[in-house]
Amino acid sequence: MTTAAPQPPADLVIDHCTVLVHDEDGGIDFRADRAVVVRSGAIAELPASGEAAGIEARERIDARGQVAMPGFVNCHTHAPMAALRGIAEDLPIEEWFNERIWPVESQLTDRDVELGARLACAEMIRAGVTCFADHYFAMDRVAAVVEETGLRAQLGWAYFSSQGPEGRARSLEFAREHQGAADGRITTALAPHAPYTVTADDLAATADLAREHGLPVHLHAAENRAQTDHSLKEHGLTPIEILDRAGLLATDLLIAHATGLTERDFELLAAAPGRIAVATAPRGYLKFGWDTTPVRDLARIGVPVGLATDGAASNNTLDVWEAMTLTALTQKQATRDPRWLTARQALDHATRQSARAVGLAGRIGALRPGHRADLVLVDLSGPHTQPVHDLADTLVHCARSSDVTTTVVDGRVLMRDRELRTVDVPATVAELEERLPVLTDRSHGQRIQTYEA
Amino acid sequence: MTTAAPQPPADLVIDHCTVLVHDEDGGIDFRADRAVVVRSGAIAELPASGEAAGIEARERIDARGQVAMPGFVNCHTHAPMAALRGIAEDLPIEEWFNERIWPVESQLTDRDVELGARLACAEMIRAGVTCFADHYFAMDRVAAVVEETGLRAQLGWAYFSSQGPEGRARSLEFAREHQGAADGRITTALAPHAPYTVTADDLAATADLAREHGLPVHLHAAENRAQTDHSLKEHGLTPIEILDRAGLLATDLLIAHATGLTERDFELLAAAPGRIAVATAPRGYLKFGWDTTPVRDLARIGVPVGLATDGAASNNTLDVWEAMTLTALTQKQATRDPRWLTARQALDHATRQSARAVGLAGRIGALRPGHRADLVLVDLSGPHTQPVHDLADTLVHCARSSDVTTTVVDGRVLMRDRELRTVDVPATVAELEERLPVLTDRSHGQRIQTYEA
Repeated sequence: MTTAAPQPPADLVIDHCTVLVHDEDGGIDFRADRAVVVRSGAIAELPASGEAAGIEARERIDARGQVAMPGFVNCHTHAPMAALRGIAEDLPIEEWFNERIWPVESQLTDRDVELGARLACAEMIRAGVTCFADHYFAMDRVAAVVEETGLRAQLGWAYFSSQGPEGRARSLEFAREHQGAADGRITTALAPHAPYTVTADDLAATADLAREHGLPVHLHAAENRAQTDHSLKEHGLTPIEILDRAGLLATDLLIAHATGLTERDFELLAAAPGRIAVATAPRGYLKFGWDTTPVRDLARIGVPVGLATDGAASNNTLDVWEAMTLTALTQKQATRDPRWLTARQALDHATRQSARAVGLAGRIGALRPGHRADLVLVDLSGPHTQPVHDLADTLVHCARSSDVTTTVVDGRVLMRDRELRTVDVPATVAELEERLPVLTDRSHGQRIQTYEA
Repeated sequence: MTTAAPQPPADLVIDHCTVLVHDEDGGIDFRADRAVVVRSGAIAELPASGEAAGIEARERIDARGQVAMPGFVNCHTHAPMAALRGIAEDLPIEEWFNERIWPVESQLTDRDVELGARLACAEMIRAGVTCFADHYFAMDRVAAVVEETGLRAQLGWAYFSSQGPEGRARSLEFAREHQGAADGRITTALAPHAPYTVTADDLAATADLAREHGLPVHLHAAENRAQTDHSLKEHGLTPIEILDRAGLLATDLLIAHATGLTERDFELLAAAPGRIAVATAPRGYLKFGWDTTPVRDLARIGVPVGLATDGAASNNTLDVWEAMTLTALTQKQATRDPRWLTARQALDHATRQSARAVGLAGRIGALRPGHRADLVLVDLSGPHTQPVHDLADTLVHCARSSDVTTTVVDGRVLMRDRELRTVDVPATVAELEERLPVLTDRSHGQRIQTYEA
C-alpha cells in the first residue's frame, strides 16, 4: 500500500477573497470566494475557499471583502529621488533640471541615495507596488535596499556621455554583477540617460553591449514635443530615429515617457526588430503642461505601455494606482473619446503590459499557478468603493492606493493590515531630515549636467 | 473684590497641530505647534500649544504631526447619486443621460435618495468634506440626512421645465422651508437644472423668485463646448447669454462646470451685477473627454472658482481633495504653463473661493476666530508625504483624502482617528444592495428627460 507524500505547509494561504484573473486571451475577470495558495514564492493554486480550508500554511490571511490582484509595477522611476520630493515645484523642465535637480544631485551621497530609496520602497509597498524599474545613480545602494525591503526591481545605473567612457562601463558592470541578485528578485538593464544627454556613438556602443551581454536597455526618449522639435532641428532626426540609427530598436528597450512621438516614429516602432515597450507617467505630464503618451497609437502598433510614476521630485507620488486612474482619465481626454481606455484596459496596462515592459512577462502581472506570488489585497468596504456594479470600474475609478491592506512579493508578506514589515519609516525620515539642509543648499553653483533639449 | 467669571469648558480643543491660516490678503501660511479652541461651534482662538494646556474641554485631541486645515467644500454634487456609482461608465454624455441615468432616475424612490445621500455623506466625511452644495430631487430626504450626519450643506431641489410649473414651485417651497435648518447648517438655493432643460421663461421666473425671496440660484451651464455650440445654433446665444437675458446674472449664481465658455461670456460675467461663482469638477471633464473649466480666465475677471466632484455616477468619487489636486494638474496642462495654479492657489480654491461659491464667505473656509469650526486634521507621517519641503506642495501634490483622520463640522467631531461617528456604512450599503436590482433595471423603457443639447 502506498500513500501520497504529505505536502509541506504552504508559505501563505490567502482565503475568502475575490481574485482578479486573466483569461487565455488576456481579458480580465474576477472569481469570487477563492483562495491563493503560495509555495516556494510562487502561486501554487487558486482553489475555491472551501477547498483551501484544509491546507496547512505558515501564514494565513482571511481576506473576506477584499480583492486579490497582481501587485503594481512601477515601470519607470528614480526611487532615491523620494529624498528630493517637493524641492522643485511649478517649474518648466529646463529650470527643474538646471536650477534645482541637477545642482542638488551634484551633492548627493550614497547615504542619501539609500535613504531616499528606502523611503520610496516604503511608499511603494504601502501603495501596492511590488516591482519597480529604477534608473539612477549609486544603484548598488538601491540594490541593497531592494534586497532588504523585499521588493522586486529591474535596476539600471544611469549615465551621461559627459561622464566619459567610465559612465557606460559602470552601467555595464552594475548590470552584470547584480543580474539575478536578491534571490532572483533583481534584474538589470543598461541605462543611458537619454538621446539628448548621450551621444549617438555612446548609444550605438550601448546597443552593442546589450546584444553582447543579453541585457535590456532602459532610457528616456521623446519626453515631450519640444525635445522632438529640438532634435529635428539639431540632427534632422527625431529621438526615436536616433535610437533606431544607434541600433537600440533591435534591443529589449524600455522607453520612458515618449509623449513627443511623430508619425515617422510609429512606423519605426511598429517595424522594430527588438522588444520595445513604453512607460507612461501621466501625472508628471500634466504637471509640466505636456501632451501625454499616445497610448492608443502605441496599442495600434502593438507596443505595450506600462504604468509609471517617474521620480518623486517631479511626480510627487510613487503611486502607480494613481498612474492607472490618470492613464484612463487622460487618455479619454487626449483622444476626446470617453469610450477609449476602459477600466479593463487600464487594468491590462497595470498588469500584463507592465510585466512585459519590465521583461517579466510570464513571471509576474497575473495571478496564475506558476507565476511568482507578487500580489496585493484591496479592501473595498469603504463608502467610496460602494456599491459595486463592475469590479473593474470600482478598482480603476473608485478605489485608490490607500485601499491596499496587504502587499506580497515572492510569497513574502511585506505589509499586512497596513503595517509595514521591512521598513522603519520614522527612522528613515528622521535621518533624511537631518541631511536635507546640506543636500538642498545650492550655493555651491554646481550641477551634474545642463539641460538644453 | 470681583473675579472674572470662570469660562465654561470649551466644546473641543485640538492641540499640538500645525494650522493652515489665511493672512489679511488671503495668502496661505502655516503656524506650527498651535491649538484650535472651539466654543459654541465656532473657532474661539488659535493659541500656541503651551497656552492651550490649561483650557478645559469636553473633548481634546492631541494632533501631533498633523495639519489642521479648513474642511473641504464640495461646491457641486448630487449626493444621492452615490447609489448609482458605476452604472454608466465609459460613455459620452448623451448615452450617459439618455440610456442610463435618466431611465434609472425614473424609478428612484425617496428611500433610494436617502440611502445614496447617507453613503455620500459617509464618503465625504471620510474625505475631509465638511460642506456640500447639492442639486437633486427629493431634497427633503437629503436635508434629513444632513441633519442626521452633521454635515453642512447648501441644498437646492432641481427642476426641469418638462415638469410644468410644479417643479419650480417645489424648488421654491423647499428653499423657503429649509433655509437655516439643522441649527443653521443648511442653507438653500433655487435649482433650475440647466439652460438646455429649463426654458427662458422659467429661467426668468426663477431670477424673479431669487430676488423676491433673497435666494441664491444653483444650476448647470455651458457644461461643455458642444452645449455652447448647440445653444448658439438653436438660439443664437451662448448658455451664459441665456442666463444673462433671464436676469440670472443679477442674482447670487453658482454655475456648475462652465467648461464651454466663450470670450463673449467672459465679458458678460465680468460685468455681471450679481455675485457669480463657478464650481469646477475636473475629474469628470477628463472622463467625458471635455475641456476643463477656464480657471485662469475666470481668475482674471474675478469670478471665484470652487472645487467640486459632481455626482458619483459620473465622477465615481466625491473626493474634493482629488478635485483640488486635479485642478492644479489639469490647469497646468490646459494652459501649457507649469507655473500656473501653484499649490497655494489650489488651496485658495479649496478654502476661500469655495466658501464664497456656496455663499458662506466669512463663516467657513478659513481657520480664524469667529468662523464656524469646520475643519479637518491631516496626518502627514506617511512615507508618501515625507520629506516636507513646503507644506502647501505636500498637501496638494503628495497628500490625499485618505490622510484625513478627523473631520469636524460646527465644532462637532464627525470622524475621529478615521472612525465615523454619525453614519453606519455597512447597514447603508446592505440596504442599498438589496434595492439595486430593481433600481438599475431599465426594461421599463422610461426616462425622466431626453438630452438633446
